[in-house]
Amino acid sequence: MERPESVGGSVRRGDPRRREEWGIEFSRIVAFSDGVFAIAITLLALSIEIPEHLPHDATVSELLEGQTGDLVAYAISFAVVGKLWLAHHRFFSAVERFDGVLMGLNIAYLAWIALIPVTSEVLGDYGDNSAGVVVYAAIMVGVGVTFAVQIAYATREELIRPELREAERRYAGPTNLFVTGVFLLSIPVALVSPLAATLMWPIVFLSGHRVAVRVAGLRG
Amino acid sequence: MERPESVGGSVRRGDPRRREEWGIEFSRIVAFSDGVFAIAITLLALSIEIPEHLPHDATVSELLEGQTGDLVAYAISFAVVGKLWLAHHRFFSAVERFDGVLMGLNIAYLAWIALIPVTSEVLGDYGDNSAGVVVYAAIMVGVGVTFAVQIAYATREELIRPELREAERRYAGPTNLFVTGVFLLSIPVALVSPLAATLMWPIVFLSGHRVAVRVAGLRG
Amino acid sequence: MERPESVGGSVRRGDPRRREEWGIEFSRIVAFSDGVFAIAITLLALSIEIPEHLPHDATVSELLEGQTGDLVAYAISFAVVGKLWLAHHRFFSAVERFDGVLMGLNIAYLAWIALIPVTSEVLGDYGDNSAGVVVYAAIMVGVGVTFAVQIAYATREELIRPELREAERRYAGPTNLFVTGVFLLSIPVALVSPLAATLMWPIVFLSGHRVAVRVAGLRG
Amino acid sequence: MERPESVGGSVRRGDPRRREEWGIEFSRIVAFSDGVFAIAITLLALSIEIPEHLPHDATVSELLEGQTGDLVAYAISFAVVGKLWLAHHRFFSAVERFDGVLMGLNIAYLAWIALIPVTSEVLGDYGDNSAGVVVYAAIMVGVGVTFAVQIAYATREELIRPELREAERRYAGPTNLFVTGVFLLSIPVALVSPLAATLMWPIVFLSGHRVAVRVAGLRG
Repeated sequence: MERPESVGGSVRRGDPRRREEWGIEFSRIVAFSDGVFAIAITLLALSIEIPEHLPHDATVSELLEGQTGDLVAYAISFAVVGKLWLAHHRFFSAVERFDGVLMGLNIAYLAWIALIPVTSEVLGDYGDNSAGVVVYAAIMVGVGVTFAVQIAYATREELIRPELREAERRYAGPTNLFVTGVFLLSIPVALVSPLAATLMWPIVFLSGHRVAVRVAGLRG
Repeated sequence: MERPESVGGSVRRGDPRRREEWGIEFSRIVAFSDGVFAIAITLLALSIEIPEHLPHDATVSELLEGQTGDLVAYAISFAVVGKLWLAHHRFFSAVERFDGVLMGLNIAYLAWIALIPVTSEVLGDYGDNSAGVVVYAAIMVGVGVTFAVQIAYATREELIRPELREAERRYAGPTNLFVTGVFLLSIPVALVSPLAATLMWPIVFLSGHRVAVRVAGLRG
Repeated sequence: MERPESVGGSVRRGDPRRREEWGIEFSRIVAFSDGVFAIAITLLALSIEIPEHLPHDATVSELLEGQTGDLVAYAISFAVVGKLWLAHHRFFSAVERFDGVLMGLNIAYLAWIALIPVTSEVLGDYGDNSAGVVVYAAIMVGVGVTFAVQIAYATREELIRPELREAERRYAGPTNLFVTGVFLLSIPVALVSPLAATLMWPIVFLSGHRVAVRVAGLRG
Repeated sequence: MERPESVGGSVRRGDPRRREEWGIEFSRIVAFSDGVFAIAITLLALSIEIPEHLPHDATVSELLEGQTGDLVAYAISFAVVGKLWLAHHRFFSAVERFDGVLMGLNIAYLAWIALIPVTSEVLGDYGDNSAGVVVYAAIMVGVGVTFAVQIAYATREELIRPELREAERRYAGPTNLFVTGVFLLSIPVALVSPLAATLMWPIVFLSGHRVAVRVAGLRG
């Protein structure tokens, strides 16, 4: 079939491989992405700092003192990375074939995902500061844009299962753009009030899919 | 089948996917959870601190001095995470189908698991202090509660293999609640004696399943 | 078959599960172990310290100064963990069935494996010190003993594929015991000369299998 | 077949195992390698340092001040590790059988991969310094040489799928050697200008495959 045409093991554009034919390789890409997600989500906890040299009779509140920011950042980031992983999970479930470009785009996307632990630490330390919130939101915009490019490319190149193409085009893309838009919008808000910007995130994240469904309904 | 009905790759409640149909996706959830467990359990060792600037002729006891707490915390936490992983492993073996809610609950559960390394470091540094022991026990209660909710939800929504439902209901749930109860009980004990609270954990953990079997026998 | 007999998803002794029947679960144990190995081996590099505040025109030798110990420890530990992973890989290839005890023993074994990165850091910092070398060798003895117990248990309970049982008994066990013995022997040597003890390790590790083959030949 | 001949689970040279026969074991090697890659690529972000004790009204540029080097090093290294992973992925897709030597060579190769995070940190801190750039390029030469040895060994021992052998010989090998050669060449360049050496890397990396195709065309 296509195998003898693929030169030197390289995956050329226009010669996308089917999920079925290249099962092992497709699953490696998925497993690699999952590995990055799993490591990034577990590393989030490392940004929680443990106070040193507390006295023997320190209380729980003394032990947790000054860590409220870290704990809130952990909760937000765990929910965010978990949600992003589910979205990635769904997207790759719908992908039928892949090519070298999609693999490259996925790596660029993972480069943003891997930045989340260190950005979450910034949020934990400087979450009451406009700068910390802006940096966090900017990384999320980076995640959203690279995900949007993946979705757009896979849709255009018809790498998505035929029966799911319409659904992906109408829901997955808009949901992602909506979420990305809110993170983008939270950047100017953060310059005025870091807290207001932070409060925008969870609300939006939870309602993102619902909004996309409604938008699709209006367009449909 | 069910596939064309699932919109945009989203998993709707009431439309749970069968393990067989969605093998790749189910295995991704399991692999992701295992990844978080494997990373968390391996990171436990990073909380062991190496003394700096010891003289050339330092002895082994000087090298290990002040690390007894860290080593005990490592041993306890490795056993705990290992045991939790086995329980999670058994639970997901019994799960036949999953839906979006179960995935979300599993991520909330993993958020508690990922906290264990940093909590273990707290225990290592402040294990002779009530506060350190209370924090550790509180995280374990968080693990137990989120696991109980997963079990209860999967049972109620009949996501568990029919032949294992009765067994899950009678053993897995009670075992988890018993273990969680002891960690909860160790919190007031820790306020009096951190050592007594710490000693409660391994004993209970080992006997948890046996107790549940007996409880089931009494009820049966 | 055996499934309805296994209560609550628990794995009872005397009721070992076949590799074929419980493929997903067996592969999870293997994948979890591999995950711990992969994380531990990659974390080894984190113990290499980067000098801070070097001048702009610092040379390569100034950059690497004082890191010889760290780099040697990295090379030794990477080879050791790689070799241990291969041995574990071979052992689990030969395992046909598993039970709860073997899973527990494997977790105890992994607890020693996960200690290697921090122990490697000790070796890097205190490798010219008897204490650092003794601690490293002691961890390896811990690895060897827990691996020996796994092999012995799996052999006794006949969890190993019939056609590989004799080979495992005659080669895998003795190879492991030989390697463990050398690490044990290097402890008193380290008290006299840390360098001599360190030099014992790579030589032995490379010849371990060969020696076991010869021993088996003498006995055979 | 070959199984009864393989002694003690050991893999002897001249007795390479087929991918099909030993599916689980082959996939473990691949999964282990992917794990190391995924961890190494995710750890890259940990070298980005977060400034401490900034005032409440610090700006984004103050927050990112002095981190330009870290961020550039992150971008370069993520692209490099991603590209290396794709090359490894392609190579192992073409491998039909493996033996103990190839496994050993792969572990030696992974030892260089696992060094990239710490080397990337060196580049981030000392990227405007010849020494930092030389160290980074030297690690890449180590990666390239150990990969070249793997390719050469697998080709010589005919471990590669027959239909892909010619392609591997003409493209994968030369591409890798070309890339390695440029990193080697950047070492003397770095002694004169670290910036010029750094700029050589991305250009070359992107054109590596194209050059190899042309070289193969000239030879063909």
